[in-house]
Amino acid sequence: MIKVAIYGYGNLGRGVEAALRQNPDMALVGVFSRRDPATVKTRTGAPVFEASKIFSMRDQIDVVILCGGSATDLPEQTPALASHFHVIDSFDTHAKIPAHYAAVDEAATRGGKIAVISVGWDPGLFSLARAYTGAILPEGEDYTFWGRGVSQGHSDAIRRIDGVLDARQYTVPVESALSRVRSGEAPTLTAREKHTRECFVVAKEGADLARIEREIKEMPNYFADYNTTVTFITAEEMKEKHAALPHGGRVIRTGRTGLAGGNGHTVEFSLALDSNPEFTASVLVAYARAAYRLAEKGDVGCKTVLDIPPALLSPMSYEDLLEKLL
Amino acid sequence: MIKVAIYGYGNLGRGVEAALRQNPDMALVGVFSRRDPATVKTRTGAPVFEASKIFSMRDQIDVVILCGGSATDLPEQTPALASHFHVIDSFDTHAKIPAHYAAVDEAATRGGKIAVISVGWDPGLFSLARAYTGAILPEGEDYTFWGRGVSQGHSDAIRRIDGVLDARQYTVPVESALSRVRSGEAPTLTAREKHTRECFVVAKEGADLARIEREIKEMPNYFADYNTTVTFITAEEMKEKHAALPHGGRVIRTGRTGLAGGNGHTVEFSLALDSNPEFTASVLVAYARAAYRLAEKGDVGCKTVLDIPPALLSPMSYEDLLEKLL
Repeated sequence: MIKVAIYGYGNLGRGVEAALRQNPDMALVGVFSRRDPATVKTRTGAPVFEASKIFSMRDQIDVVILCGGSATDLPEQTPALASHFHVIDSFDTHAKIPAHYAAVDEAATRGGKIAVISVGWDPGLFSLARAYTGAILPEGEDYTFWGRGVSQGHSDAIRRIDGVLDARQYTVPVESALSRVRSGEAPTLTAREKHTRECFVVAKEGADLARIEREIKEMPNYFADYNTTVTFITAEEMKEKHAALPHGGRVIRTGRTGLAGGNGHTVEFSLALDSNPEFTASVLVAYARAAYRLAEKGDVGCKTVLDIPPALLSPMSYEDLLEKLL
Repeated sequence: MIKVAIYGYGNLGRGVEAALRQNPDMALVGVFSRRDPATVKTRTGAPVFEASKIFSMRDQIDVVILCGGSATDLPEQTPALASHFHVIDSFDTHAKIPAHYAAVDEAATRGGKIAVISVGWDPGLFSLARAYTGAILPEGEDYTFWGRGVSQGHSDAIRRIDGVLDARQYTVPVESALSRVRSGEAPTLTAREKHTRECFVVAKEGADLARIEREIKEMPNYFADYNTTVTFITAEEMKEKHAALPHGGRVIRTGRTGLAGGNGHTVEFSLALDSNPEFTASVLVAYARAAYRLAEKGDVGCKTVLDIPPALLSPMSYEDLLEKLL
């Protein structure tokens, strides 16, 4: 049994708790939270410990799955834990991955531990799709489309606008752009041509809706470069129709082969997810197994999905993999 | 530069020859053929050598890409070469992979070499899709659909029928089955429900067409379990409309997560290929790079795509992978 600790208990931590139940070779030691343990109730009755207590429980834990956010939690927590435990995180601020890698690698190497960072679906499975297909079709282009799904970052940005009580933002791929990409024409596409943004907003009573809509649509980086629609709804409608966190997307690579580039190929990897956090949690758990196995082989330091042999993720024996999957 | 030899010069070998041109870190040493080298003309002017001469050119070759067939060539050739060279093959007889693995592993280990077998898209990329998604969604089902594309094995089977001059068989996935799978209902599907088979046949003048059609449709394993259509065409039409070797397909896994399995997810990996041999060749070349790198690290023995860290396939530096792909 691989003994796993969950560090941070939000949507992602709850997803890991559920995912561990689907993997009979793994056991949950407990949830570690910065909140008062008495106030945290886990869904499976798993014990809750104060976060700092984890260091005194080293011999009871094989792998720690960090379930905090990328903005402020993981840049501190992953290096802090990586010198004491094998760790997995879902750090997803693409531009800061090299710096995070360096910090975590230093800590993990110093402690003789394995760390796997940026695990999930983007970064994560989509990174794999880009790496495999880019190596196989060197003369080609790849495209990443997200959605239809809820972007938490964009929803949060709307919630910070004065007069907004709640918001949900859906990122939606533009179908005509998808068709052009799949055809192999290798188009150059602007942000606006690839995705639209649909915003559902609950406003305070009496708020200036026109101003809120304008502030959303003109927000730089988040919305200004996209065709954005804003729909005001009631708190009840929000709860009824927008409580779930679906997401998904696709990586498409098109490329040409042959001495004169005469043949075109399209490779597509797509996800349609009812629950973004539960799926991400399932990816984290599979990589926790891989981290444990890498450590058993004596490997140390920071890894990403690009470094890990796929067989290490699977609970199947190598013989079964050869016979049944290959 | 990684120095590559091509062993066997059919459609696949010609595809490898073209693919190497797209990879500036790799150079083609030459083509090794069982035919008289004087009768073989390569498309790029690469030199042709008699097959047995390869053993005297060991110091000029880093990796041998075997381009023979799975029925009789590779079971002999891959073990025979694997004790002398790092090798890659596309052995694709699924049921015989464990035996092939054992024979190649013995030879490669004995010679201190790396061998990577069963590289291509199925087995190969589709095996990867099955392994990754199966590990991530343990409570789920996966489905493999092939086509629309030319099945060489089925085309050959038709050609062996008395009175048939030429034949091309297209494997076609059933759209309604695809929809049911993607919906997450996890249906149990028979061979007939998943694929149809379209046969285009050039018959000898005066041949009994009704008999040929009946022999095709009743052929066990190949056609009897499928809805099969047979269309007789002229040799000219065959040349004009059916000269290419397109193929493709998809692996779809659906699974459920959450403590009560409340959320469904669909993961799909699909290929649409103008040229099956050229795409397979491109996969072989990427894995030749990986084999070379594994060998540089001192690894030996037989590997499959499931054993190889994705980063090893890419010509990009690790820093670039972290920055640009992850």
